[in-house]
Amino acid sequence: MFELGVVKRNISRADRVATDGLAQFGSATVHEAMGRVGLLQPYMRPIYAGQQVSGTAVTVLLQPGDNWMMHVAAEQIREGDIVIAAVTSPCTDGYFGDLLATSFMARGARALVIDAGVRDVKELQAMGFPVWSKAISSKGTIKATLGSVNVPIVCAGMWVNPGDVIVADDDGVVVVPAAKAVATLDAASKRQALEADKRARLAAGVLGLDMYKMREPLEKAGLRYID
Amino acid sequence: MFELGVVKRNISRADRVATDGLAQFGSATVHEAMGRVGLLQPYMRPIYAGQQVSGTAVTVLLQPGDNWMMHVAAEQIREGDIVIAAVTSPCTDGYFGDLLATSFMARGARALVIDAGVRDVKELQAMGFPVWSKAISSKGTIKATLGSVNVPIVCAGMWVNPGDVIVADDDGVVVVPAAKAVATLDAASKRQALEADKRARLAAGVLGLDMYKMREPLEKAGLRYID
Amino acid sequence: MFELGVVKRNISRADRVATDGLAQFGSATVHEAMGRVGLLQPYMRPIYAGQQVSGTAVTVLLQPGDNWMMHVAAEQIREGDIVIAAVTSPCTDGYFGDLLATSFMARGARALVIDAGVRDVKELQAMGFPVWSKAISSKGTIKATLGSVNVPIVCAGMWVNPGDVIVADDDGVVVVPAAKAVATLDAASKRQALEADKRARLAAGVLGLDMYKMREPLEKAGLRYID
Amino acid sequence: MFELGVVKRNISRADRVATDGLAQFGSATVHEAMGRVGLLQPYMRPIYAGQQVSGTAVTVLLQPGDNWMMHVAAEQIREGDIVIAAVTSPCTDGYFGDLLATSFMARGARALVIDAGVRDVKELQAMGFPVWSKAISSKGTIKATLGSVNVPIVCAGMWVNPGDVIVADDDGVVVVPAAKAVATLDAASKRQALEADKRARLAAGVLGLDMYKMREPLEKAGLRYID
Amino acid sequence: MFELGVVKRNISRADRVATDGLAQFGSATVHEAMGRVGLLQPYMRPIYAGQQVSGTAVTVLLQPGDNWMMHVAAEQIREGDIVIAAVTSPCTDGYFGDLLATSFMARGARALVIDAGVRDVKELQAMGFPVWSKAISSKGTIKATLGSVNVPIVCAGMWVNPGDVIVADDDGVVVVPAAKAVATLDAASKRQALEADKRARLAAGVLGLDMYKMREPLEKAGLRYID
Amino acid sequence: MFELGVVKRNISRADRVATDGLAQFGSATVHEAMGRVGLLQPYMRPIYAGQQVSGTAVTVLLQPGDNWMMHVAAEQIREGDIVIAAVTSPCTDGYFGDLLATSFMARGARALVIDAGVRDVKELQAMGFPVWSKAISSKGTIKATLGSVNVPIVCAGMWVNPGDVIVADDDGVVVVPAAKAVATLDAASKRQALEADKRARLAAGVLGLDMYKMREPLEKAGLRYID
Repeated sequence: MFELGVVKRNISRADRVATDGLAQFGSATVHEAMGRVGLLQPYMRPIYAGQQVSGTAVTVLLQPGDNWMMHVAAEQIREGDIVIAAVTSPCTDGYFGDLLATSFMARGARALVIDAGVRDVKELQAMGFPVWSKAISSKGTIKATLGSVNVPIVCAGMWVNPGDVIVADDDGVVVVPAAKAVATLDAASKRQALEADKRARLAAGVLGLDMYKMREPLEKAGLRYID
Repeated sequence: MFELGVVKRNISRADRVATDGLAQFGSATVHEAMGRVGLLQPYMRPIYAGQQVSGTAVTVLLQPGDNWMMHVAAEQIREGDIVIAAVTSPCTDGYFGDLLATSFMARGARALVIDAGVRDVKELQAMGFPVWSKAISSKGTIKATLGSVNVPIVCAGMWVNPGDVIVADDDGVVVVPAAKAVATLDAASKRQALEADKRARLAAGVLGLDMYKMREPLEKAGLRYID
Repeated sequence: MFELGVVKRNISRADRVATDGLAQFGSATVHEAMGRVGLLQPYMRPIYAGQQVSGTAVTVLLQPGDNWMMHVAAEQIREGDIVIAAVTSPCTDGYFGDLLATSFMARGARALVIDAGVRDVKELQAMGFPVWSKAISSKGTIKATLGSVNVPIVCAGMWVNPGDVIVADDDGVVVVPAAKAVATLDAASKRQALEADKRARLAAGVLGLDMYKMREPLEKAGLRYID
Repeated sequence: MFELGVVKRNISRADRVATDGLAQFGSATVHEAMGRVGLLQPYMRPIYAGQQVSGTAVTVLLQPGDNWMMHVAAEQIREGDIVIAAVTSPCTDGYFGDLLATSFMARGARALVIDAGVRDVKELQAMGFPVWSKAISSKGTIKATLGSVNVPIVCAGMWVNPGDVIVADDDGVVVVPAAKAVATLDAASKRQALEADKRARLAAGVLGLDMYKMREPLEKAGLRYID
Repeated sequence: MFELGVVKRNISRADRVATDGLAQFGSATVHEAMGRVGLLQPYMRPIYAGQQVSGTAVTVLLQPGDNWMMHVAAEQIREGDIVIAAVTSPCTDGYFGDLLATSFMARGARALVIDAGVRDVKELQAMGFPVWSKAISSKGTIKATLGSVNVPIVCAGMWVNPGDVIVADDDGVVVVPAAKAVATLDAASKRQALEADKRARLAAGVLGLDMYKMREPLEKAGLRYID
Repeated sequence: MFELGVVKRNISRADRVATDGLAQFGSATVHEAMGRVGLLQPYMRPIYAGQQVSGTAVTVLLQPGDNWMMHVAAEQIREGDIVIAAVTSPCTDGYFGDLLATSFMARGARALVIDAGVRDVKELQAMGFPVWSKAISSKGTIKATLGSVNVPIVCAGMWVNPGDVIVADDDGVVVVPAAKAVATLDAASKRQALEADKRARLAAGVLGLDMYKMREPLEKAGLRYID
């Protein structure tokens, strides 16, 4: 958040297999697998339901009402990237629409995460390009002031470095530092494996109170049952 | 909102027939039938569209970032209940996901209403478990501090007693005190019967100004028509 | 926003052909075609996705918690109108539901835009009546205080005169002054024609940096590329 | 929140000595003394700084944009009361100004707590009448629809019964159920006595880590110190 | 809100005597004197307490993050003006600080009302220059895109024409159309005269219920007193 | 934001002279001197007016409703530090009051910046301990879950490393990376020197249009003056 006017070309991307493998687990499992960290604020919502993706981050730092750097970012996109963008102050303007999406898709981008507004929602859904944003707005933007591409940014309250893994679904967006991608994939797999058994037992009527052995700690904490 | 660390086991539930009968009318008609009271704040939204349910309230008072009491609540659920949960201070964390939903469904719960966040939106929709919440968030919660189950709570600005009727649909959530369930069902039926006739007349082009005889009171109030 | 207790009957509506022709372009293109003006605030959202309409404005100024003027407005609707309503202070109550929608449709209204709440979301979708609103709420309203119909209003931050063109879709709502309807239709057509070519080039992998000749101005502005 | 059109005249007020004694402790200490319950939402703020009061609740349930019940409430005020008011749906209008404050003071009211707006801030400060509110707004209100006086209400997320104790200061507003007033006064006194000693030790440089014996539980929880 | 790139030099200002006379009444009385219209949204707050002013409007339409037009506006200020500024989309940046205030004061401006952010709060208070704003923010702005000066604008939900009267105090901001300035001054004077008598009677313990003869209409509306 | 359960003891603090020298310039000048970066979101406000400080950051990462790490942080404070704290999800609870302030002051802390709530506002002002926060709330917190001390955090949208410089005043809070402290002090001094001359000229009636030579670029941009 401290560098303006810079584009970093050669970034180190997270392990590809781990990055791609994380999509299937979704944001909640990945967040838990990292030790309950990494989430963007919950005001970041998909512009249409049902998408679930992972990819390597190309970061963009934008100025209010100015999407110039989105065009600069397009050139830096590689197959399997997700563009993630922040603004230097709160803004709901429509920084992104079907033309930029066409360009981003042609470059290999899998999705956009932007702490601002987007437009052409219907077209983006028809194109199958997933977007998570703070707002939907038709407001057009200018191209006048420099921001940066592929510098560290803060997006919706979370620190993102270029090359980190982004995992996003209907529950929200989570950032996995590149160095933790492989370990997080492993932890997420294990976590999910455990959940299948738990789900079966709960479906059979076993209570979490018993399955998680909570009765004793609850009693110790002083929980009283009355009739 | 004043009792922590308590679980009430034997609660008096609203009349079952009246409770179940209220679902068909939806939150708007039930709210009107009670004399325009009982609604939760409109920031409470279904996590997916198209659900319409009624049930008897099992109430939960939670601590910020802590879903321990949701597990305690599961044991108190009876067939036909709706779990309704509040937090002691504003929180958007994801208190509830597919595992808890599996357990709640196995116990007979029809829905969850929670003044906080939930996660696993896609899975919950696939399971057909309806949820109304303030937020959607992957943020995990801990199990460390006592709240209460089946005490009176304030959820999204409305007072709820265990055993009250909850009616929820795409328009929002309304609470019917248990003692008013039967009378409200009756009033809602009558209201709806009247609406069919009104709808037909309005569809035929009759104006509300004439149907509701508003022209005279409008004139008395001083309304001026100009050209 | 300064006249209460007035209904203007004979308003001058925007050119019908231009009004109807604007629907196909959507709010973003029309906003750009007007020179990036005319948008309502982005908190105005469709109550269900997929609608895209244009029409001539019948304006309503409402009092908090009071929908009396909606009934007065019904009589002023002509085929091809969109009702657009503001409140004298912020309010989320449900001013509009299926009965009023039945009446509005019978009068020829194409949609409602309201800086407040509505209810009967499911019924409105089933009826195919499009609504853009600030909130969804079952809260009922009274009929006690005069507002106005067909006076100039401010709706969600934008000035609207009766007879102006309203264009609304999943991206938001834009107002075109009646006197600018024909010119805006022309400008929107031209803008859209240009976009087809741009889209094809971007899809083929041409960068916006080159297509829009941004490299030189970016360099002049001081953009630095690093590795 | 379920009774409209009712004024209860003879309410049972909390113990006077306990009520008056609670003012000195402030909202934070009283909230802790009750076991960390009873607080209104933190958006409730004093309209000017430096006031600290306690009193017995006269409750008011208002309609949006309508302050009729404030006049009805005035008659029910007794020496030592605090008027606490809620609205049936969110509203920021200015329900209260210097004239009503003059009347309330003449009746013996000590303060107003209102989940809505007030006006005449400068005059209220000059009169020395304390107010906690959600908003400040000049917007005038009407007198057309019945609410209630001295029924149970939900104000800013907290349940209040007529006669309960209200304690308010620069930190916020807390409700003490009438039946708990005496015990809460006692607990608050003890809590405050303990704080004096703690404050002295902390001022002398003793760490909370040692004073509260936190080092061992922190270590058990897994806290790691690195250099 | 529809003209960009325009500065109107010769505007017609409201009657000077009426404009200056309105300051003493404050925003609430002036709003009531106009028939309960004209208020900006209540999120507009003074950056420090205790100011009360009136003046003729010089309007400014700004772009997000861009204060170029504030400098253009400075030249259009005449003695007794208040600058009132809106942005084409929501923005909290700091458009105004002590340097611009120095310039505005040198030109004769009495205050600034801006639906955005300002900075240098301490210096502005020391200079005695009153400001009402949506936010306080140190964020700097650029000078790149045209807006307009002295065109009609919507500021915080209210329509303002250049030359209108602005009245602002601790309760908020109200706009009086130039053509209504004299009549509003007269109505405000009368209203205030009536209030003195009312205040005296209320202070003497007379109830509003009796003074305003509310008991009969309340009874007719069905108000029930219970013990 | 990715490390929980860690306390870093030996952090590298920014140059002391530069850190201390930055206080006099305030957040707006320092933000400009860094190239318009470094600001926290404008919802961070001083809990009382008139404070202006700078210091070296001790960072704290907290859990929702849990202030355990504040006690851990106290031990890490050195003379001249400012404690800056974030929470893993949005929370308004009162994490800090007069006891912790007593301890922090005894350790040499100059201020607290916290993206959450605090309480004991009156006492903190009396003690002269400056605080910037998102909320004021009496809500008490628990001590149950580990966060971290002196790890990098995101506070109110800005990245902060332990040892960075924090500058805060009535306009907001800005972060200066430790490595830029000396250069920023130099740039801020130069900027301020230039402002004195500008201020004198503007006070003498010179327009910014002329002083900044804006007339030509405005004309080029197409600005039209009309009468």
